[in-house]
Amino acid sequence: MKGKFVTFEGPDGSGKTSVLKAIITHLDQMGINYLETREPGGNRIAEAIRQVILDKNLTEMDARTEALLYAAARRQHLVETVFPALDSGKLVLSDRYVDSSIVYQGAGRGIGEDAVAQMNNFATGGLVPNLTLYFDVAPEIGLQRIKKYRQNEIDRLDTESLAFHQRVHEAYLKLAQQETERIIKIDANQPLKNVIDDAFSQLSNKLPNFFR
Amino acid sequence: MKGKFVTFEGPDGSGKTSVLKAIITHLDQMGINYLETREPGGNRIAEAIRQVILDKNLTEMDARTEALLYAAARRQHLVETVFPALDSGKLVLSDRYVDSSIVYQGAGRGIGEDAVAQMNNFATGGLVPNLTLYFDVAPEIGLQRIKKYRQNEIDRLDTESLAFHQRVHEAYLKLAQQETERIIKIDANQPLKNVIDDAFSQLSNKLPNFFR
Repeated sequence: MKGKFVTFEGPDGSGKTSVLKAIITHLDQMGINYLETREPGGNRIAEAIRQVILDKNLTEMDARTEALLYAAARRQHLVETVFPALDSGKLVLSDRYVDSSIVYQGAGRGIGEDAVAQMNNFATGGLVPNLTLYFDVAPEIGLQRIKKYRQNEIDRLDTESLAFHQRVHEAYLKLAQQETERIIKIDANQPLKNVIDDAFSQLSNKLPNFFR
Repeated sequence: MKGKFVTFEGPDGSGKTSVLKAIITHLDQMGINYLETREPGGNRIAEAIRQVILDKNLTEMDARTEALLYAAARRQHLVETVFPALDSGKLVLSDRYVDSSIVYQGAGRGIGEDAVAQMNNFATGGLVPNLTLYFDVAPEIGLQRIKKYRQNEIDRLDTESLAFHQRVHEAYLKLAQQETERIIKIDANQPLKNVIDDAFSQLSNKLPNFFR
């Protein structure tokens, strides 16, 4: 694997997607060979699966079913998009990866973090990110931002309770404490500009070969 | 769990679906409280997943993606259909279950039988059938039957090679040898009438409480 695999993690409203876009602009200016992608979409099979996952009429979906669907989309995303980019030496930046399933399905929906991690290991064939930027935000602040910026695109996942988002937050913190080598926690309660600066600084420090 | 869970397994062309229909007719005549169902379909989410799995235009689907999709459909099928029927004391007869994934994805597509079994354990929460009727047929005979009876409905799964079907056959035999308590092997090379007689005889002997 010649490239490097970087994942962006955090709750909705953490600003991670905005940060990712800002970083992409930097990378473009620097002429760095990268691939920006997101989960669970990005290819035809994954998008078809995404339609099933996000269908507002399918509210009776079981939590394990949902976790398996995310893992299926993840697998296809890896095979079609991520593996080839890594093989060709690119810096791959993915908006969400396995950690999201561990915290949302494992902790949030209560299936169990270890069970979800183990099942996802089947999906990924053991591919662990070289670096994960975790954007940490208080659940109340994250939820306020969602309500403000996405009033017209609330989907099934946003209708979860505050208690759900608190479980997600605690599980993210636990992962960050367990894997201090891989996961860098960034304070996303700050103004967006500072969050972007912190994230870019971490990225260029941890993967110096891309930023010479 | 007050009911009993019986699965019908075997390669395409083994006649298992015809046998299941004949057994259902018997059960109707005897007034037995049963549920007949099939994988991966049977509910709205599973049917949507089934469409993704069987779409002829999605030939680039990865084997692990496919295994995860079958497991997702399986989970939803259990939650919506099988668990409630078992709780209410029914005899549940399912056309395919985990063994199909182990032999088709694990052995046939080469992901590994143990990996597929373990991943499916996440999907099923550990529900193992009380009885599995395995309809054993030589791959050449099974394929001949498929060609004869289903000329107009060949889907992606039928276009696999003879070598694939031989791997599936060997894996079924291995499972039957490993789990002699649960899996009853029935000679499906015989004429259909004899296969039906054997299957019904095994079913009524193994689950006498339903056939008093």
